[in-house]
Amino acid sequence: MNVSRLDRYLISGLPPFEGLDAADLDTVLQGARSLRVEKDAAIFEQDGEAHSFFVLLDGKARVVKSTVDGQQVIVRYIVPGELLGIAHALARRTYPASAIAVVDCVLLSWPSRRWSEFAAAFPTFGMATYKTVGTRLGDMQTQIIEMATEQVERRVAHALLRLAHQSGRKTDKGILIDFPLSRQDIAEMTGTTLHTVSRLMTAWEEKGLVGSGRMQVCITDPHGLFLLAEGRTGRT
Amino acid sequence: MNVSRLDRYLISGLPPFEGLDAADLDTVLQGARSLRVEKDAAIFEQDGEAHSFFVLLDGKARVVKSTVDGQQVIVRYIVPGELLGIAHALARRTYPASAIAVVDCVLLSWPSRRWSEFAAAFPTFGMATYKTVGTRLGDMQTQIIEMATEQVERRVAHALLRLAHQSGRKTDKGILIDFPLSRQDIAEMTGTTLHTVSRLMTAWEEKGLVGSGRMQVCITDPHGLFLLAEGRTGRT
Repeated sequence: MNVSRLDRYLISGLPPFEGLDAADLDTVLQGARSLRVEKDAAIFEQDGEAHSFFVLLDGKARVVKSTVDGQQVIVRYIVPGELLGIAHALARRTYPASAIAVVDCVLLSWPSRRWSEFAAAFPTFGMATYKTVGTRLGDMQTQIIEMATEQVERRVAHALLRLAHQSGRKTDKGILIDFPLSRQDIAEMTGTTLHTVSRLMTAWEEKGLVGSGRMQVCITDPHGLFLLAEGRTGRT
Repeated sequence: MNVSRLDRYLISGLPPFEGLDAADLDTVLQGARSLRVEKDAAIFEQDGEAHSFFVLLDGKARVVKSTVDGQQVIVRYIVPGELLGIAHALARRTYPASAIAVVDCVLLSWPSRRWSEFAAAFPTFGMATYKTVGTRLGDMQTQIIEMATEQVERRVAHALLRLAHQSGRKTDKGILIDFPLSRQDIAEMTGTTLHTVSRLMTAWEEKGLVGSGRMQVCITDPHGLFLLAEGRTGRT
């Protein structure tokens, strides 16, 4: 995707801007800045001043939170059309986590103070933001529940199914999770170790549930993995 | 607390209504309903239609999420002055979790549709809501991080310190967590078992870090517990 000119078509189909007419979209685009962030670079950094908010136009980002002793947890993945860096909408002055480009990303950014301006002028924009926030709160509650109550095997299965739901692409072999995903990433999403993820993936491959290459995961038997995630089948 | 008449003084000091003048407060109170919820009864239920939002005037509530197989996790505690049941502000039609009275509670409630009306008329009310949401998102991220990376001992220590910070009362013996709190509650907050919590509490009592009775926890050495939570001391 090459953004040489800020045109309405870039944002007119996206959830945050639904219901805005051509003039509204032009208002929104005034002062927007397009940027390209290379794979593995940071879009914004945890604890940094929340100067801007963003919409992802193309690519994939992961939201990562680090602990004081340097451990990392992947909080969620962001797909095209989603807002990110909306700290300002939640009355925060700093970003609570970092956003890292998983592949090359194209984004639009706005100064944070414009968020309130948009929300006041376009109620659907404000509602869309808070719907996003509501979904993320719900997802986090689910993640907490899973971490608190589920065996690691079910947790990892749930995480893969969520990624397939969010970013899956049908192929001959099954549902391919369509971005680079390492076993370490899966460990950081589910609060377990690389060793455990490797052990599980190997067992699941033997059972025909998943196929995995370097940085790639394909769910070859989604129904089987679902039953396992729900605890309705024997453990590996 | 006895709410026989809805008077401004009930809400004028509370964060969601800060900056509202007498006439604004009267507008807010029109159509508000006061209710009393007995200890252990539900204020609202997970997956129920989100018909109302609430402000807690007196008491203490816990927000609890249940899994399909009936396990429970305590997502957070609500203290007086906080909003709850604000599903509508996040474009949800149902409550994502249940709220249970930990002690007898007094609340005010409003029909959910009035949330948008208040937010439009009183921008500080909307901002206060989203600040609450932002804080809760941050807390949940922290909880996810702790569950993903910390040993259970540090997690339990962090949970007790947070409760002491939120609802602690200084006593001769230390900081008393000022509401009924069982070991099972602590297990449900931290994703561990009653057995593990009991083992930890007994060890910590012997070390002089906490004192605990039936449904009561007092932190007798807050600094010691803090060092342990941060991993800066030997393990129990």
